[in-house]
Parts: sequence; C-alpha cells; structure tokens
Amino acid sequence: MKPRITVITLGVDDLERSLCFYQEGLGFVTEGIVGQEFEHGAVAFVDLQPGLKLALWPRKSIAHDTGLAWGATSPTEFTLGHNVASRAEVDAVMAQASTAGANIVKPAQETFWGGYAGYFQDPDGHVWEVVWNPQWIEPDGDLSAPPRGLV
Amino acid sequence: MKPRITVITLGVDDLERSLCFYQEGLGFVTEGIVGQEFEHGAVAFVDLQPGLKLALWPRKSIAHDTGLAWGATSPTEFTLGHNVASRAEVDAVMAQASTAGANIVKPAQETFWGGYAGYFQDPDGHVWEVVWNPQWIEPDGDLSAPPRGLV
Repeated sequence: MKPRITVITLGVDDLERSLCFYQEGLGFVTEGIVGQEFEHGAVAFVDLQPGLKLALWPRKSIAHDTGLAWGATSPTEFTLGHNVASRAEVDAVMAQASTAGANIVKPAQETFWGGYAGYFQDPDGHVWEVVWNPQWIEPDGDLSAPPRGLV
Repeated sequence: MKPRITVITLGVDDLERSLCFYQEGLGFVTEGIVGQEFEHGAVAFVDLQPGLKLALWPRKSIAHDTGLAWGATSPTEFTLGHNVASRAEVDAVMAQASTAGANIVKPAQETFWGGYAGYFQDPDGHVWEVVWNPQWIEPDGDLSAPPRGLV
C-alpha cells in the first residue's frame, strides 16, 4: 500500500450548510454539490493541494455506503492540520474562520512544543488546527517538504 | 485561508497498536513514537505524499489539548480515500489491510458511480476507502492531478 491519501471525506449533517462554510466562509474552490442523480450520492468536493481533495458527504450517506452504524458526533476522532508560515497567518486564519461562523475551540496561543496554534470547529464539529511550526518553514515559505519531528 | 491540509491526525486509543498497524501492517514509513518528553505529547508521524503527514495521537491527548470532551468512537465522522490505478490494486491493498488485522467493512466491489472500491477500518475504527476511479487515472498512473467530479 502506497503512503497516500487522496480524499478526506467529512461526514456532515447538512450538506448545504457545510458547503457554505467552506466555500463562502473559508473561500475554498468547489463546483458545489454533485452526484445528486444517485441516491446517497450528493457530495461536494473541495480542491486542496494537488493530489488531495476534501469531500463533504452526509453522515447518513457514509453509513449507508459502508453499512456502518450512524455514529454520534465525536470531535476527538481526528483533527485536520493547516500549517502556515507565520504567527500572523495563524491569527488571520483563525479570524477568518471565526467570521465564517466556526466555533473557536482554543484561541491561537503558544504550544507546548514551541509553535503557535489555535483550534476551530466547522459546523459539524470537525476540528481544524491552524499551526505555525518554526521547524516546518522552508526559506520561501514553501510547506511542501516538511522536516520530520513534531509538525 | 489557503486550501491546504498538511497533517491528518487520527485519534487512537492505543498508540503502539496503531503504530504497529500502519508501520508493520501497511508498510508506512515512520520514525515511531516521538514527543514523549511532553505530557500528552507522545505521537507518531507517518510520511504520506509530499506536503502531507498522517499523525497518530491518543484521543485523550486530543481532548486534553483542545479542551473538548473525549467522544466515543464514531466511524461515520470521516473517511480517508486511497485512490489506486486499477481494480487489481484495490484487491491487493484490501488483502494487505486484512492481513494487517483491519476490519473489512465492505469487500471491494463495483460502486454506484462506476468505480471499484472497498472499505476497511483500522484498529481504532477509522475508515479507509480503497478506490479505483476510471475517471481519475493519468496515462502514467499518476494520481497527482485528479479531474473534477466524483473521485
């Protein structure tokens, strides 16, 4: 198995609400809801960096397609890390998320490992961490080749 | 906010069990558990494609660091998509996951949107979808520039 993730699918309760948050609130590019011609097919894809997409798909559809029981919301299952190039960029992204209606779980602050980060939740309770890691900055601000260690 | 995810952190109940699954079972490259010098810092990072890491971090540590309540396991919160270049590669990856101890949620089969895919769960119940999408294959098998649409 190659070490690769191509799609991160978030389970959502209200697809239009989630789409509005990511598209209008955070400014992510998406073609909007597609797949409506299929039962349980309605989904929205967001383009992230090359080779990676974010998908918004109803929790009920995930349960239907996998056959797994529809679980309750549980914010400690996973988090999504968004590394940026400076403390100021952490603050700017947290402010944008707040304006978009995110729940600010933990305002940006110094981290125990020497960085600066904050947490917010999207409308479905999914947790994003906005992170500045001084050990993960290329000279040109490129984050494509992170060093090992705490990120 | 740039459309970018740099780290996907999975909440786990037993860090060593999870590390064994990803490192020995799936063959992913990792330096193993680091950050043990910090309370709630023990974590393992797995290198995925350039610019993206998978992190394994105890659910209790996520709860501690975010301040959120420690939620129950809930498999419909998200899924991780692993696109491959052929039906045969779907079968091979599903077989590898099964041998590694994954729970086969849905054996590989034709999908409603014209692809071929299966689902498995890691030791913490996190769901992976192994997918062949005939619309998402470059001539050289490169998956770095997916077309839009259902992926």
